[in-house]
Amino acid sequence: MRSDPFRPAQRVAGQRQDVWSIINEAAAASPVQPIVNMGQGFFGYNPPKFVTDAAKEALDKVDCNQYSPTKGRPRLKRAIANAYSPFFGRTLNPDTEVTITTGANEGMLSAFMAFLEPGDEVIVFEPFFDQYISNIEMPGGRLVYVPIHPPASGSTKTQSAGKWRIDMDEVKARISDKTRMIVLNSPHNPIGKVFSEHELREIGELCVEHNILILSDEVYDRLYYTPFTRIATLSPKIADLTLTVGSGGKNFYATGWRVGWLIGPEHLIKYVSAAHTRICYSSVSPLQEATAIGFEKADEMGFWEESVKEMKGKMDRFNRVWSELGLPYSDPEGGYFVLVNMAKVKLPSDYKFPPHVAERPRDFKLAWFLIMEIGVAAIPPTEFFTPGNAHIVEDYMRFAVCKDDSVLETAKERLRGLKQYIVQ
Amino acid sequence: MRSDPFRPAQRVAGQRQDVWSIINEAAAASPVQPIVNMGQGFFGYNPPKFVTDAAKEALDKVDCNQYSPTKGRPRLKRAIANAYSPFFGRTLNPDTEVTITTGANEGMLSAFMAFLEPGDEVIVFEPFFDQYISNIEMPGGRLVYVPIHPPASGSTKTQSAGKWRIDMDEVKARISDKTRMIVLNSPHNPIGKVFSEHELREIGELCVEHNILILSDEVYDRLYYTPFTRIATLSPKIADLTLTVGSGGKNFYATGWRVGWLIGPEHLIKYVSAAHTRICYSSVSPLQEATAIGFEKADEMGFWEESVKEMKGKMDRFNRVWSELGLPYSDPEGGYFVLVNMAKVKLPSDYKFPPHVAERPRDFKLAWFLIMEIGVAAIPPTEFFTPGNAHIVEDYMRFAVCKDDSVLETAKERLRGLKQYIVQ
Repeated sequence: MRSDPFRPAQRVAGQRQDVWSIINEAAAASPVQPIVNMGQGFFGYNPPKFVTDAAKEALDKVDCNQYSPTKGRPRLKRAIANAYSPFFGRTLNPDTEVTITTGANEGMLSAFMAFLEPGDEVIVFEPFFDQYISNIEMPGGRLVYVPIHPPASGSTKTQSAGKWRIDMDEVKARISDKTRMIVLNSPHNPIGKVFSEHELREIGELCVEHNILILSDEVYDRLYYTPFTRIATLSPKIADLTLTVGSGGKNFYATGWRVGWLIGPEHLIKYVSAAHTRICYSSVSPLQEATAIGFEKADEMGFWEESVKEMKGKMDRFNRVWSELGLPYSDPEGGYFVLVNMAKVKLPSDYKFPPHVAERPRDFKLAWFLIMEIGVAAIPPTEFFTPGNAHIVEDYMRFAVCKDDSVLETAKERLRGLKQYIVQ
Repeated sequence: MRSDPFRPAQRVAGQRQDVWSIINEAAAASPVQPIVNMGQGFFGYNPPKFVTDAAKEALDKVDCNQYSPTKGRPRLKRAIANAYSPFFGRTLNPDTEVTITTGANEGMLSAFMAFLEPGDEVIVFEPFFDQYISNIEMPGGRLVYVPIHPPASGSTKTQSAGKWRIDMDEVKARISDKTRMIVLNSPHNPIGKVFSEHELREIGELCVEHNILILSDEVYDRLYYTPFTRIATLSPKIADLTLTVGSGGKNFYATGWRVGWLIGPEHLIKYVSAAHTRICYSSVSPLQEATAIGFEKADEMGFWEESVKEMKGKMDRFNRVWSELGLPYSDPEGGYFVLVNMAKVKLPSDYKFPPHVAERPRDFKLAWFLIMEIGVAAIPPTEFFTPGNAHIVEDYMRFAVCKDDSVLETAKERLRGLKQYIVQ
């Protein structure tokens, strides 16, 4: 008999306060209200009308309100296969090479659940999206980290986010007999780097050589400002090992819709589907239907071009404030996050930080200071590193620019207040 | 290095064809078209208009399309706490005693992930909802089965579904030092039994004695035709050990919406929330909002009474055909499934069944025959038993009556064609 029946399983026992709740609580407590929240990466505006209209119409149809097939609605799988076949340079089979998941997040968990046995190792680059970690640990996977390095002059000079680099020797050194998967993310959150074809080919060939599965998180795949390569397209042998992850929420400005998908060869996809069925059974029906219609209409509406133009406009509009202030940033090649280097910001030496912030690296103190004194919330990126490598980004802050232009202008106006703390 | 990188993890490797795909494929291949599908338990009609209207309005609001808090939207947690506090006889705290999940299914997985360590045992009654099994196995739990027994005269006489009984000595005999949780389901799928207060109290006290957590699947909690008791309300000690599972999809006729919840004491709920965050991150926002509004308005609209009256009407309307045919059934005390005993149906001795049906128990042959010769699809319930106990229900078939009345009438007309095969 259990002496303590309320003791949780090990996998959920760690309850260190995460970055999101620290920042959200600080934002709520800031003397500057309303705070400008550029922290979490949700959109400050609605999905396009042709997509919300499709969702409303779906709500009137009986079959769109009931269970969808566990692998996804046939219409959505067909729409995705049609939309992505040109990128993949071959005709994707919607029945065997596409599977729908409850957001990209549960899609990645399904992939880890499908292939990881306890003790299997997964290579993850730092900075990472924090959900990867628990998703890998849940099936018993072991994390092996490799840092992405900022350019040496990152604290003094604005440069392309593409200058953040992987050291391939570091990757090779971390491969072992236990290496089962590698996780890629391009366009990258939070760096904004789009991995070059050359970089992806090096990684892909290494995976072929060592029989390592590739899980390529490409949820920002419609937002790139430089040529974008999908690793699955580089060779048939690489494609054989690759699962590509996509997100309706990121594509159509609806992070709360929880519609994601994986694309890959049948011999991988069928097990991802099996894992997804065991996790969520099926995914949300009316919003799958709306996402299908979104893909069917996006090209004719010119939505994808508009989407890039609009987000790149927001990015450039917002980042002008850093040039004004003389703070260098990593100019994003894709996505909607920008990393700004604040090494030049001198925090007052007598400033009082609460203990749960004081014990964290410098970026948490920068985040706290920005929220309390400036009225802008951003995310400290050391949360996305292991403690040993956190120093790499302790001077950076992540801002999400997927907000209304008026919000960006208010943020800029407030950030100009940083000037008095900047030492050039 | 892996010699076979495509080999799946053990947890998804078993790919025996499940009952749903066998029945759906047979239904598609039937010479009688369109088939009347009373197999899977989805509704043949739309959610009530006040709920779909709420969903449409939510789709126009920015925050209803973006990430919700991982534990659920405050408005939905408040609506559920308000709706359930009277049943629980105390004021539920929406922030600490309610957590939102991606359907009841992922909610139950979250509970298992929160508390099961590998090797922990979970007592599950047969027949079981098939998703329980993989949800328990995923965190490494071990299943321990106890059958629910039909009345001895079930093959000759229509009786209340309440006559299906648990033998408490069988339950006690299966408790070990490893017993961590027990899963209850009332109103029960597929039996239609509503567990009596006396039965629940016996189970609850046994759990208190042995420190066993209770996961009470009450997704059909608004559809009962006899007094319904919630085990969490029987004593504070039982409540301390109990997580109650609910479903917006079942309550509001929208199985494709994937909005579920768990109610329980803070010391259990907080770990369920933590597991849910690691599995799905957050749940679908606009449909959480619509479900909240559904709860806010349901009482004043008289929706719950109407819901019971309508479903009980369908149940009685449909079951009249069994009285006509002289086939006994278990008269449901709740839910929308009915189990019919077809021991008297003599299948032609020379009838050709395909191998994947021929190798299964008699109920699979009955299901195949009904689909191909009569044009009505139903579910063979041995799928919800372990092989050793499957014989208990090999003469039964499960029909879902949550369909339009015209569909029920067509089904009855077709089922009258069974008469020639019935030997009284």
